[in-house]
Amino acid sequence: MSFDRLCEKILACKNPTVAGLDPKLDYIPDWIKEESFQRYGRTLAGAADAYLTFNKGLIDALCDIVPAVKPQAAFYELLGWEGVKVLKETIDYAKEKGMYVITDAKRGDIGSTMEAYAEGHLGHTLVDGVELRAFDGDSLTVNAYFGTDCVKPLLEVCRRDGKTVFVLVKTSNPSSGELQDQLIGDRPVYRVMGEMVNGWNEGAAGQYGYGPVGAVVGATYPRQLQEMRAAMPHVFLLVPGYGAQGGAAADVAAAFDSRGLGAVINSSRGIMCAWKKEGCDPRDYAQAARREAIRMRDDICAHIQL
Amino acid sequence: MSFDRLCEKILACKNPTVAGLDPKLDYIPDWIKEESFQRYGRTLAGAADAYLTFNKGLIDALCDIVPAVKPQAAFYELLGWEGVKVLKETIDYAKEKGMYVITDAKRGDIGSTMEAYAEGHLGHTLVDGVELRAFDGDSLTVNAYFGTDCVKPLLEVCRRDGKTVFVLVKTSNPSSGELQDQLIGDRPVYRVMGEMVNGWNEGAAGQYGYGPVGAVVGATYPRQLQEMRAAMPHVFLLVPGYGAQGGAAADVAAAFDSRGLGAVINSSRGIMCAWKKEGCDPRDYAQAARREAIRMRDDICAHIQL
Repeated sequence: MSFDRLCEKILACKNPTVAGLDPKLDYIPDWIKEESFQRYGRTLAGAADAYLTFNKGLIDALCDIVPAVKPQAAFYELLGWEGVKVLKETIDYAKEKGMYVITDAKRGDIGSTMEAYAEGHLGHTLVDGVELRAFDGDSLTVNAYFGTDCVKPLLEVCRRDGKTVFVLVKTSNPSSGELQDQLIGDRPVYRVMGEMVNGWNEGAAGQYGYGPVGAVVGATYPRQLQEMRAAMPHVFLLVPGYGAQGGAAADVAAAFDSRGLGAVINSSRGIMCAWKKEGCDPRDYAQAARREAIRMRDDICAHIQL
Repeated sequence: MSFDRLCEKILACKNPTVAGLDPKLDYIPDWIKEESFQRYGRTLAGAADAYLTFNKGLIDALCDIVPAVKPQAAFYELLGWEGVKVLKETIDYAKEKGMYVITDAKRGDIGSTMEAYAEGHLGHTLVDGVELRAFDGDSLTVNAYFGTDCVKPLLEVCRRDGKTVFVLVKTSNPSSGELQDQLIGDRPVYRVMGEMVNGWNEGAAGQYGYGPVGAVVGATYPRQLQEMRAAMPHVFLLVPGYGAQGGAAADVAAAFDSRGLGAVINSSRGIMCAWKKEGCDPRDYAQAARREAIRMRDDICAHIQL
């Protein structure tokens, strides 16, 4: 239950990282795109087919060493429903290969609407009594500007289906402080959000001590990462911003508990574009991603006890 | 540019309302569902087909009297990519019939990701030099917890393609105050967000005085609605919460400027489920929706000068 499944995968791989699957056509080798365009034309379906080939190659190359993937919904939606179909196919493929899937969609809405997001992304859809699964990710990122109404339907699905969510607390982007660092009394907004996350986890800790509601805290703000690790001892952290966005291994080390658990560090561009940075044969893009994933794992594990 | 197109449609219809297209299977008459299930089975595709028939009927019945529709992405995502395909088909059909389409997806993310949401939902997708349109709504709802990074890519697309966005300021749900009413100095969070929205509109007002960045303020909080109308004189408002959620016409009147412009009031369940409330022949659901839309228009217009 809760984050136990993810913790077990992390322990099995000895690797607390997640590979972001945020494909852009620029990141995909020409040979993949050309094959897809030949089959489907320079269309949304053609681009979506290239995403899928690219993703499957990455998943094949990473699934025995990286515990989780995090597809970013925006890049799939950029290709319309054809892209969203490939988001689902990517989720299915990664799960088949044993990976934990965090759908990075940052959903948030009023209660009745959130029920639909919760069941659509994590749970099931009832069609005249038939139970179907629309996306069936293991975890979903959530924007809780709406407060508890937005999280309650997710808690239900998490409990029922053993899923998890990550609520935005302190995001990795340069302007995150415009709202998130403003003080409410003596506490910044991100801290207030963190205390709400603590509340949503009450009485729901799993075997490793973490409740079903995780939090997103960016590696680009190491002081706040350290602060929020201490302030949310039962909250599993998703930490974006390592690598391309500027966060270093020494910075992200603060996200972990004394067992080396309690956080996953994401890298998207670093892994997806390793073949460009290496300058290797583009047909070798997935092995370049694997080399980068190993480098990242070793970089982070040098700073923690896992 | 900006909200001019919506203002003109509102003036032409003499109706400042928007019909929410948030289909749930429960809202759809059995005769529609049975036809769809016969063709596609009790599957996500079958349910999605029922959505589309239901929506087209509503759009046909409303398009000459209601200026805009607001499909809620969550309910389409609940049906997976098959549902998202129907979201796109609904957007296309409503636009064909002359309606302004607000995609209610409440997206928000870091800058590079937001570019993908902006181009996917409002702008265009480049596939090897070919310009394609993924969803092509007229407007998108946005959650700006991330600050300016999240809004900048949207502003670009708004300027380039004449689109608009609505940023969440004070939401209509019961728990919205947990974060949004907390005080930053002497201003609640929603007020701080409202001032950010003011800033994003600077120098970009259209012919009717409204910039491209609108705001969501719920009818369920009439005092705050009045406050934010005054605090954001160049910000077009999207006002949910009328009807089913409890907001009354006298409450929403405060959202408008002296010309009866500056806001659209949403009703979703009220319109979609009018046939149930009326107890009319389910084959007459679309005309029941039309009757309710007229009742709502007259109810609101009795309180404003349009």
